[in-house]
Amino acid sequence: MLGLTILGCNSAVPSFGRNPTAQVLQTQKENFLIDCGEGTQMQMAKWNIRRSKVTRIFISHLHGDHYFGLIGLINSMSLLNRTQDLHLYGPKELEEIIGIQMRVANSHLSFKLFFHPILEEGILVDDNSMTISTFNVKHRIECRGFLFREKKKPRSVNGEQVRAYGIPVSFYEKLQEGQDYTNKEGTVIPNEVLTRPGIRAKSYAYCADTVYDETIIDKVRGVDLLYHETTYLKANEDRAQMHFHSTTTQAATIAQKAEVKKLIIGHFSSRYEKLDEFLIETRSVFKDSVLAQEGTCYKI
Amino acid sequence: MLGLTILGCNSAVPSFGRNPTAQVLQTQKENFLIDCGEGTQMQMAKWNIRRSKVTRIFISHLHGDHYFGLIGLINSMSLLNRTQDLHLYGPKELEEIIGIQMRVANSHLSFKLFFHPILEEGILVDDNSMTISTFNVKHRIECRGFLFREKKKPRSVNGEQVRAYGIPVSFYEKLQEGQDYTNKEGTVIPNEVLTRPGIRAKSYAYCADTVYDETIIDKVRGVDLLYHETTYLKANEDRAQMHFHSTTTQAATIAQKAEVKKLIIGHFSSRYEKLDEFLIETRSVFKDSVLAQEGTCYKI
Repeated sequence: MLGLTILGCNSAVPSFGRNPTAQVLQTQKENFLIDCGEGTQMQMAKWNIRRSKVTRIFISHLHGDHYFGLIGLINSMSLLNRTQDLHLYGPKELEEIIGIQMRVANSHLSFKLFFHPILEEGILVDDNSMTISTFNVKHRIECRGFLFREKKKPRSVNGEQVRAYGIPVSFYEKLQEGQDYTNKEGTVIPNEVLTRPGIRAKSYAYCADTVYDETIIDKVRGVDLLYHETTYLKANEDRAQMHFHSTTTQAATIAQKAEVKKLIIGHFSSRYEKLDEFLIETRSVFKDSVLAQEGTCYKI
Repeated sequence: MLGLTILGCNSAVPSFGRNPTAQVLQTQKENFLIDCGEGTQMQMAKWNIRRSKVTRIFISHLHGDHYFGLIGLINSMSLLNRTQDLHLYGPKELEEIIGIQMRVANSHLSFKLFFHPILEEGILVDDNSMTISTFNVKHRIECRGFLFREKKKPRSVNGEQVRAYGIPVSFYEKLQEGQDYTNKEGTVIPNEVLTRPGIRAKSYAYCADTVYDETIIDKVRGVDLLYHETTYLKANEDRAQMHFHSTTTQAATIAQKAEVKKLIIGHFSSRYEKLDEFLIETRSVFKDSVLAQEGTCYKI
């Protein structure tokens, strides 16, 4: 199971107590930080997100409201004597930006920071539990979305049944992989009798700042949760287009066409104090929509 | 009259809801921002400090807890279409750090930013109302303190008396400068009869991160308010020395030897949740001491 905690849901200038973009995708064993606006480390402390569980950070693009908090977070991790590796994925210029700020402070990190410049669409991480890939979105500067897909979970052994059929413990792993069991008498016990289906693998797609772009649809098709920016209300579609941002109904249209299970909207413009209209407009096109609210954890 | 509002009073890593260093020295017509840790722009919004009144920013040194909020603040000023000039004083490397972050965002400021690299001790600003100078302190990297001195205020004309003696309005400016008035009969009316003393010019000294250093004493002698860092309690004097920081009693000793009117202490280490001991220890050496508390405005 995955959980998504929103740390910042505002665009550009922090307003009405709303912070710039940052969110944490939580698995049982690690936290993935997605974008890191100014104040992210304070938001993590406020909402009890453990810095030490953050193994990978993904930066969509180099507008300040998506990364100005990165250097502070990294610096604090080091001051707190972090020792675990940290993997950072983002535009190639990020390396120099971090580098110069470490140099002028005459500081050295207490841990290994592996920087992975994102040069093209494709897979960034592929391990036992998860595949993480990146795809292009259309913004004023180079900008990427991220797609997180859990690996298919193994079937779980049905304790009552394996005892009833006398299956040796040494065969459990094969059962989890889906194999049938053949006993000494040559009788085949079907896997379905001995196991339960694994928990369904979940998926999350993050579409950072982007203009309405139908090429996104195929990239995020069918995900369990889609985050799509909605900087503006429908009435400001022209402004959205001009600034390479999206509106509520545009985000909802992408969600609908991509047949995702649920949509979460955020990156609200500072011109809006109340957000009710965002939800109303989005739900008018795609019913299963929620607002990104800081401190809330959305279960996937 | 001057007012000092504390926006951040913690050192290094933000902790216990305390923010990294930033403070605003307020005059009637402008705000001077002194250091700018991460989250300063949010703190300014929270404590009603107007960004538009900030005319000059002073950065003591390039440890992150003193400047990581600068790029976000400047960026927000521009997004809000600031047009007034902004003057920035700090270590020379700051120009490149800001420059690279503007370039990768393909952004241009809406206002003129004048960067004044600090290369040596001396006067930074000398205008009608104020002289602002910088002096070296001793830290792990190059670090400066700042001294703000109001210009001597002109004497104010005593309305009742000037009418009684029939002084022409055209002579008021000379009265403010301290001249006596000689009437047609050749009688000299002494200035003291016709005017009241101007409000006393005030002074504020900011000693950013520094080890205990008696060369500071002469530089801040007699100021109305001295801010001196106290990262550690007295018991951690060795640690303070090692990290080029000061303790409570060391700050108080500087205040006492410099015969300042009042001492404000801050830059508290994240190892301390409660700050009572800081005040008790400091006052044991220098009675007129206060804690830097976020959101509080200290009148000078």
